[in-house]
Amino acid sequence: MTSVLEHQLIGRLAAGLPRSPAQLNRLHESDAELVRLPGSDLVLALTTDALAEELATGLYADPWLIGWMLVTVNASDLAAVGADPLGLLICETLPPGADGDWIAALQRGIADASVAYGLPVLGGDTNAGAAPHLAATAVGLVPGRPLTRCGARPGDLLFASGPLGGGGAFALAQLVAPYGPHAVPFRPVARLREGVLLREVASACMDTSDGAIATMDELMTRNGVGLRIEVPVERWTDPAALAAARAAALPPWFLHAGPHGEFELLFTVPPDRIPALEAAAEAIGWHPLRLGTATTEPGLAVPGAAGDRRPDTTAIRNLFAECGGDVGRYVAALGNMLPET
Amino acid sequence: MTSVLEHQLIGRLAAGLPRSPAQLNRLHESDAELVRLPGSDLVLALTTDALAEELATGLYADPWLIGWMLVTVNASDLAAVGADPLGLLICETLPPGADGDWIAALQRGIADASVAYGLPVLGGDTNAGAAPHLAATAVGLVPGRPLTRCGARPGDLLFASGPLGGGGAFALAQLVAPYGPHAVPFRPVARLREGVLLREVASACMDTSDGAIATMDELMTRNGVGLRIEVPVERWTDPAALAAARAAALPPWFLHAGPHGEFELLFTVPPDRIPALEAAAEAIGWHPLRLGTATTEPGLAVPGAAGDRRPDTTAIRNLFAECGGDVGRYVAALGNMLPET
Repeated sequence: MTSVLEHQLIGRLAAGLPRSPAQLNRLHESDAELVRLPGSDLVLALTTDALAEELATGLYADPWLIGWMLVTVNASDLAAVGADPLGLLICETLPPGADGDWIAALQRGIADASVAYGLPVLGGDTNAGAAPHLAATAVGLVPGRPLTRCGARPGDLLFASGPLGGGGAFALAQLVAPYGPHAVPFRPVARLREGVLLREVASACMDTSDGAIATMDELMTRNGVGLRIEVPVERWTDPAALAAARAAALPPWFLHAGPHGEFELLFTVPPDRIPALEAAAEAIGWHPLRLGTATTEPGLAVPGAAGDRRPDTTAIRNLFAECGGDVGRYVAALGNMLPET
Repeated sequence: MTSVLEHQLIGRLAAGLPRSPAQLNRLHESDAELVRLPGSDLVLALTTDALAEELATGLYADPWLIGWMLVTVNASDLAAVGADPLGLLICETLPPGADGDWIAALQRGIADASVAYGLPVLGGDTNAGAAPHLAATAVGLVPGRPLTRCGARPGDLLFASGPLGGGGAFALAQLVAPYGPHAVPFRPVARLREGVLLREVASACMDTSDGAIATMDELMTRNGVGLRIEVPVERWTDPAALAAARAAALPPWFLHAGPHGEFELLFTVPPDRIPALEAAAEAIGWHPLRLGTATTEPGLAVPGAAGDRRPDTTAIRNLFAECGGDVGRYVAALGNMLPET
């Protein structure tokens, strides 16, 4: 079995670090860390995420978007465990001569997201450094059983919280210049409200921060199941993203190959809980999209005209890192690994 | 009144950011953020701190020490609010080609501190970047009333949790080469056990991460009191640090002028709680050092042969930033601002 490169690194870093007996999840089992509070039924959800590659590569260049995303990437991890938001810590390293307007726009992005998610800024740390570095920590609370990446069983239905592919299309437009003539609007909204509803309904959940294929790969690995995509990719791909892929003569699946996603949730629901999902979704005017079904047969299956295509999701997931930032090579190699439509 | 430069920056960054109604502290009122957990008597203590300047200037160069300090600076903030430790999140940005031995030593430093403080690593984030950047978040719990920087009254006695000046001496040896011929051992230990005891005893508390004078300045401002140092500086200064200052022909107060401290706690105790402090300290074999007394007259007073000296603690605190990294100018200017002995 191919192993996920990023997991190898994290495994090496985590080896030898003491873990907590109060922690409910092990490595990679949930989007946020889950800790039972002593003498209480509450579970604390904690997550930390920095914007590093996103700034260094120029993927996020607009300072307002950088601020918005700094909050969103962390809020999305809280959403994926079904946590009620409690607050944020912001850790900013800024160049001593950073432009005042740039900083003001960054802070507005942070403030706008903080308000949008009901995730107040509790505090933080400021430092001076040659290059800007932005990290944040989000904290939430789960009353009762949190949602994790684990719990899907064969027969469970696979859903997305909304159209996918916007993160891939944005990266295409920002980084893959020859393929990306179209500006693609990108302002993802972490699915906190939906995550809270899914706590009672979903069997497993994960956000698409690394793209849909990486998320499917992880859900399959964590649960020992396969996933069969039964709804055509065009039906659950963002229309603007689809148009961008078509303009660049790339297959729609390219948009889902990552490593930059759109912060939707991918989740599985047992068949007997579908009515509960529909009722909960209707109550907030939400339209989850069905993609397929979890299967006993391992791996991703994508039906096509010439029968099932079975892309190697772990190899696809590792490809960007293996290409070492060579975007042209990445795009060329990916073409051979993806379903055509 | 002189204003603290770092506070001006933080104030600008924080303006417009939404705050939480569940938060017990305002800006600068405590070393960690304090949030009452809904439906519970527990207060969550949260803090985030990065090592940025410390790495960029070469102050911390040994990778084990970098790992140890990454945990210690955050644990020390939990100590200053009297929190029981719950766990850590580590956010590492490492150069893609970082040396394996360097990373292994860094991780050992993190693991050793994590074990020493009973502060398990709950999770984290890893990124690739041109320069290493290390941030961490520490989480703790306070059952009941947390300790803050606020609550000192005139007549309260001022203590340090241990000898001060080790952080200043280490910075002297690392950064001010002409003045620092002596290697100074530096492995501060966050005062978590002591902080928990102080919860019931101290009226105000803050760690000396920015040096003793900056800490005194902050405690005076927060409480509208002055501080009169009644015990000679040699009695509460670390002996090795004192020797280093003498070898460099610098006054002992130089060691306390910051901006790099030793992560002890400075705290005030009302006279009627001194027996409780003594009993608690004796129970764990701890020897807090008395420095002086809080006064109604504002500012720091240091008795000397020619009467009281009244150094401008805020100006001293701002000096390093104002010298823009010019260490020679900083050392020369500081000489005129400090008490002689």
